[in-house]
Amino acid sequence: MPREHTIDPSVIHHHWDNRLEPALVIQPGDTVHYDLLMAGDGQVAEDGMAETTVFDWDLLYNLSGPVFVEGAEPSDTLSIEILALETGEWGWTSVLPGFGLLPDDFHEPHLHISNLRGGGRVPFADGISIPRAPFLGTMGTHPDDPVEANPFPPHKGGGNIDNRHLVAGTTLLLPVWLPGALFSCGDPHAAQGDGEVCVSAIECPMRGSLRFDVIKRSIAAPSFRSPGPLSVETAGRGYHSTMGIAPDLMEGARMAVRAMIEWLGHEHGLEAVDAYVLCSLAGDLKVHEVVDAGVWNVGFAMPLEVFER
Amino acid sequence: MPREHTIDPSVIHHHWDNRLEPALVIQPGDTVHYDLLMAGDGQVAEDGMAETTVFDWDLLYNLSGPVFVEGAEPSDTLSIEILALETGEWGWTSVLPGFGLLPDDFHEPHLHISNLRGGGRVPFADGISIPRAPFLGTMGTHPDDPVEANPFPPHKGGGNIDNRHLVAGTTLLLPVWLPGALFSCGDPHAAQGDGEVCVSAIECPMRGSLRFDVIKRSIAAPSFRSPGPLSVETAGRGYHSTMGIAPDLMEGARMAVRAMIEWLGHEHGLEAVDAYVLCSLAGDLKVHEVVDAGVWNVGFAMPLEVFER
Repeated sequence: MPREHTIDPSVIHHHWDNRLEPALVIQPGDTVHYDLLMAGDGQVAEDGMAETTVFDWDLLYNLSGPVFVEGAEPSDTLSIEILALETGEWGWTSVLPGFGLLPDDFHEPHLHISNLRGGGRVPFADGISIPRAPFLGTMGTHPDDPVEANPFPPHKGGGNIDNRHLVAGTTLLLPVWLPGALFSCGDPHAAQGDGEVCVSAIECPMRGSLRFDVIKRSIAAPSFRSPGPLSVETAGRGYHSTMGIAPDLMEGARMAVRAMIEWLGHEHGLEAVDAYVLCSLAGDLKVHEVVDAGVWNVGFAMPLEVFER
Repeated sequence: MPREHTIDPSVIHHHWDNRLEPALVIQPGDTVHYDLLMAGDGQVAEDGMAETTVFDWDLLYNLSGPVFVEGAEPSDTLSIEILALETGEWGWTSVLPGFGLLPDDFHEPHLHISNLRGGGRVPFADGISIPRAPFLGTMGTHPDDPVEANPFPPHKGGGNIDNRHLVAGTTLLLPVWLPGALFSCGDPHAAQGDGEVCVSAIECPMRGSLRFDVIKRSIAAPSFRSPGPLSVETAGRGYHSTMGIAPDLMEGARMAVRAMIEWLGHEHGLEAVDAYVLCSLAGDLKVHEVVDAGVWNVGFAMPLEVFER
């Protein structure tokens, strides 16, 4: 019989380390209930300002786990069914000098606080709100190599994949690298666009429930299955999209986001830094073509439903 | 009063060249009806095989235009409202050695023919069909510099942007670089995914109608407005998605598409080259995150609606 577990919320780790003792041992088919801290818990205040916020990078991520799944062996696949995710009371989004897609454009630190109370859409600015679409930025099996790593780059077991489509109802598939899979998660996000271009999402606390299973087959890369549209909540009123045409995908991404920031200023009166944050929280980077004679087309799509008018 | 025009289908050009005589002169607000040749018209046969097809690259693209829009001046924006697009009878898709996202994986030429008669979905293989979603792969204003260019790379006036979202109902916005804008279009596609990963779409003839307008404002990049969901026809049954996690966006794109080809073989029994073509026609490249400590996450999403089972 599958069982339900509540993982101890006080057992957290800040780095990937495959020597860690399991926080919980489960069987395939079991469900784990989580109560997860926000990234930067205790380092950012709801009434805080960018100038007074000092991030301790070594302690920024609060990962819960590892969960040891009995029977999971290297070259198996760990299936993680995302049953439910519920955001906490508030969240933060930062622009940090030297980070993000456009470090040459934004040199000052900036902090945006979101009020998540009351459910429904998340207010962003006058006449602008963002659909709540909670997911965990970080879900991963511990790699066999390296033994230890910082939590920011994603890795061959997934990790900080920041994939906004992994909402409740979705099933994530991750390669298993070590016996028991050693699954950890954290970095909860109330909303984020494809790209996370300003370097952060709506970073918030979250309660969630995940059901684990083991598939006796290897997969070529982390994968997921979505039961419906990838962006149903924002699709109804259409999109304004920009295109970055360049011989390098990264440069194309920058061009497309810069053009969107310009449009958001012209059409909706947003300051550039607010437009950049909105791009990170609600806009999606797409690769329209990657095969045309050495010049690629990277798109950036903003759902018009974020605007009341 | 806005007028309607039918552009002479026999006036075609194969390269961008801003010294070309206008094929048609119109006013802002006018509509132009097109009867466009497929790319490679006369070079590929419906009963042809890859081995007997010889492409003449100099004559491959058949662009209609240029259309001179009176009143359009450099630094204006040309608005192109895509009123209607209707596919011809058949189309072709090729894998060409040395081209596409995965030239190291596919060394043999391959040709896939699609029967477009009868409307509705396009049959691909036993139990697999592709939603018809016609668009023009190439729409562009002539750049001021260079004077002449081959038609394959997209450019600062748009051109071969291969953006699958530019279906009927969408409005494309392009920068104007020369008096009259000098708009040309062609390269009709019956269907294509974001990325066009195998190097071609369903290349076919097409009839279409475009309405032109001039906006007295410059834009930072080619842009478009979609009235509804970006992928409504394929969203209903959900997606299987793969992730390429790598320090380079192009390498991540390759990893994600390779993982999808592996999955299509395992799950749906497709030969690798057929899976690669299906990826080009129906799968979408997305950039999930581009900001995490130098390691990016490129996704590739396949709509499950292409599979009957």
